[in-house]
Amino acid sequence: MLRPSARALRYFGASGSCAAIALCTAYVTSSAAQSSKESQPAGGGAGSSNASPIYGVTIPAGYRDWKVISVGRLRTDKINQLRVQLGNDIAIKAFKEGQLPFPDGATIAALHWTYVPSEENDKVLAGAFPGAQSFVPGSAVNVQFMVKDSKKFASTGGWGFPDFKAGKPGDKALHETCYPCHEPAKARDFVFAHYAPTP
Amino acid sequence: MLRPSARALRYFGASGSCAAIALCTAYVTSSAAQSSKESQPAGGGAGSSNASPIYGVTIPAGYRDWKVISVGRLRTDKINQLRVQLGNDIAIKAFKEGQLPFPDGATIAALHWTYVPSEENDKVLAGAFPGAQSFVPGSAVNVQFMVKDSKKFASTGGWGFPDFKAGKPGDKALHETCYPCHEPAKARDFVFAHYAPTP
Repeated sequence: MLRPSARALRYFGASGSCAAIALCTAYVTSSAAQSSKESQPAGGGAGSSNASPIYGVTIPAGYRDWKVISVGRLRTDKINQLRVQLGNDIAIKAFKEGQLPFPDGATIAALHWTYVPSEENDKVLAGAFPGAQSFVPGSAVNVQFMVKDSKKFASTGGWGFPDFKAGKPGDKALHETCYPCHEPAKARDFVFAHYAPTP
Repeated sequence: MLRPSARALRYFGASGSCAAIALCTAYVTSSAAQSSKESQPAGGGAGSSNASPIYGVTIPAGYRDWKVISVGRLRTDKINQLRVQLGNDIAIKAFKEGQLPFPDGATIAALHWTYVPSEENDKVLAGAFPGAQSFVPGSAVNVQFMVKDSKKFASTGGWGFPDFKAGKPGDKALHETCYPCHEPAKARDFVFAHYAPTP
């Protein structure tokens, strides 16, 4: 089984990009380097400098407004992040119905921010909640996607795993590392996120 | 200025309900105990056992699928939560455009879960990211709303602040405590959450 390389680990450590609950991929074949219609906003496409290596996927339009799957925090010796996983309508429907595998067209977005204390909140909380600590998103780190296309991405579990930072895709080495992280979740169609319960 | 009472503090400590980044209210007048059309799902309404004290607001239908404003973690000596703030379309538009005050009809939902380590994620991460710690939502704690109606809720900054746990509203004492927490954010129309940057 492929494992994340030392280079990838350094890359992740510096950029805070990939982790198991996030989205990565292994470079297995370049035959998948076609763009998915679903993931093509206007102006982007395979061959575009804004398309990810290996998968040729550009940033799906409107993902910031997708629905919430779950939230989380990831901390390693190098990164400390607040995270949210969003889904397009196809993905959300599958989560709600417990549908596995996810149908083609399902797309999951993982948005990552630095994890920072909110002095503004803490100041307000101090009176009523001594010792309260509030943490909020700092700066944007990156956004990663899982794009389901069981034929196009057959060699990587049926998923494409593009990764973007400041609107630009990560390099090939980065994209080679993600799928192996997701392999342990094969029984859940390679998706780590669970749908958070509704309060 | 009204301050959270000792009773409220105990309540919050036990239930993890209210905090400054969440949504609380002070009982100032019961004249606001009318239900907002926007916040009325079928079957609910003022006078219903599912309507909040003071404001008479029931849980807005479909809030779990609203769009993301931001995420966060709150820790005190009694609670430890992962949180997400969602907005209906009116609220999201106002956040994106920086509109203050928020227009009538804007509604914000704050969903709170217990903050728990994910052994499942950590096990996967251990190989590539020694010492990695992943935290995810555990059980649902509560959901709180800010419902903007500048006339109906004029005595509490133009906002109603209903709070629900397992589908049932908190008691009157709880609802009396929230608005004072939000007063320090008067310059931002009593809203603490900032719109998280788009990665």
